Amino acid sequence: MKSTYEKKANFWIAVDWGTSHLRYWIINREDGKLINEKSIPLGIKFINHKNFENILVNEFQDYLLENLTIDILCCGMIGSKQGWKDSGYFSVPFTPEFYKKLVFVKTKNKKLNIYIVPGLKQSNPPDVMRGEETQSLGIIRKYNNFDGVICFTGTHSKWVQIVGNEIISFETFLTGELFQIISEHSILKQSISTKKIDINLAKEYALIAFSDPHKFSKNLFELRAKNLIDNLNSSEILSCLSGLIIGLEIAGSRKYWLGNEVILVGSSPMVDIYKLILNKQNIATSIQDSKDISLIGLKDIYKNLN
Amino acid sequence: MKSTYEKKANFWIAVDWGTSHLRYWIINREDGKLINEKSIPLGIKFINHKNFENILVNEFQDYLLENLTIDILCCGMIGSKQGWKDSGYFSVPFTPEFYKKLVFVKTKNKKLNIYIVPGLKQSNPPDVMRGEETQSLGIIRKYNNFDGVICFTGTHSKWVQIVGNEIISFETFLTGELFQIISEHSILKQSISTKKIDINLAKEYALIAFSDPHKFSKNLFELRAKNLIDNLNSSEILSCLSGLIIGLEIAGSRKYWLGNEVILVGSSPMVDIYKLILNKQNIATSIQDSKDISLIGLKDIYKNLN
Repeated sequence: MKSTYEKKANFWIAVDWGTSHLRYWIINREDGKLINEKSIPLGIKFINHKNFENILVNEFQDYLLENLTIDILCCGMIGSKQGWKDSGYFSVPFTPEFYKKLVFVKTKNKKLNIYIVPGLKQSNPPDVMRGEETQSLGIIRKYNNFDGVICFTGTHSKWVQIVGNEIISFETFLTGELFQIISEHSILKQSISTKKIDINLAKEYALIAFSDPHKFSKNLFELRAKNLIDNLNSSEILSCLSGLIIGLEIAGSRKYWLGNEVILVGSSPMVDIYKLILNKQNIATSIQDSKDISLIGLKDIYKNLN
Repeated sequence: MKSTYEKKANFWIAVDWGTSHLRYWIINREDGKLINEKSIPLGIKFINHKNFENILVNEFQDYLLENLTIDILCCGMIGSKQGWKDSGYFSVPFTPEFYKKLVFVKTKNKKLNIYIVPGLKQSNPPDVMRGEETQSLGIIRKYNNFDGVICFTGTHSKWVQIVGNEIISFETFLTGELFQIISEHSILKQSISTKKIDINLAKEYALIAFSDPHKFSKNLFELRAKNLIDNLNSSEILSCLSGLIIGLEIAGSRKYWLGNEVILVGSSPMVDIYKLILNKQNIATSIQDSKDISLIGLKDIYKNLN
């Protein structure tokens, strides 16, 4: 028993605390039903001086009125060096029995029982993940003995292979981040004044980069030239850019998707680009929402913890 | 005669005015000898309110004492929309007889005769250049009827094909700019605190990207993972990054260099990476300094102007 209070609240809190967002679910301990859920733009990059405890105490003040301890199970970048407490990494291949490996965080407020899920690392090729290990567990549980490949689309897009309920290997692509820094900091920024994506144009350019990935940095400058010569407009440039970067990723992840069914984790319209290109290669896909599977993963870890 | 003064100074000024630097040469009109030369970090991106004339008047004040006109011939981004006066583009294929196509710029100070060299554009694939057209002319003149391929390494690296003294086609790669924005704005910036490049490591990673260009955005994240797992240090990360981006460019420019001798325009150590990879493909290379060939090009244009 980590707490000075003997009795536990009749709920627990699942937290996915990432770089840009804090998402949480308050869950009834008896019947597993959802009491409340919320996503707020208070990711770890916005929190100064490791002020994580104060953020939670402030957010959950209504639930902290009684002298009861509350279990809070966190996954994501909160367990990184830049987060609350470095929860370390476990090496793949890895059977996701995280409940045996959770890291406990000491708090001033003795009502809080904070646990953080560790990340995963891979030696060859070197790679790391935080958050997707819990989502991978969510997929394994949801599909009941899932064997196959998951693509977590996003800032650092990840391809993960699961065999016999084990996380076997994974690879990360800088997809979302390349999109952000090229649109905000390169010569293209002069031509970009919108966030609107034309999904059909994005798909067309994803196919171009998928077919000729070696032309990537030439295709980037060509967007600037098309802006100057052909008056390619702001939304068109942004759409072409997003397509080129996703097409490059899919060309580079071939050894993961070839011959496999792929579960795509993400939301429209970006995930539709992956679906189109993979389906064109006769790869079957299904789509899952990242927050749903985070919750399934966290619930599974918590069930085994108690 | 564009000026109110009838007599010309016994010198003229050649100017390569780019995005980051203003480089100029003061040349004796009689014997072509160099009177003075200078490169100052006053590229067009640092000049507000189109204050170009004041910059020149201030820089050349010692030469403006007598009532004589001075011819100043400029190439580079000074002729862009963001520059002094948009000097337009001519379409490839193009015989570089720029002296017939120069754009004259009106000035308050009637001693200045400012001419700007136009840029070049290409419709298919869309592309533009400013400055390299003058450098291409420099190469054509220096090699006396040069047929072959030139690679202008740099921020926007350009591959140019010359046949029968004509600029036939070209392609631009975002090489130097990708290096800058990824090292300054991506997740890698946390691991980069130096500008030191280990050229051997850069060459190794250029070969990796050249062989597997489709892995580019995966290889970028891998540098971050290697920093976390294998303690890859700051200089090593920067070296790998530079290599990956140059290798990607060389993979993408194959149709230019395959079966051709390539003149590489640039300076050590970056140009050595291009040389190594191309030589490994049995492509002969020679290296030229960009400022030397700018001057040859500008001198040739000026000679024909008068």
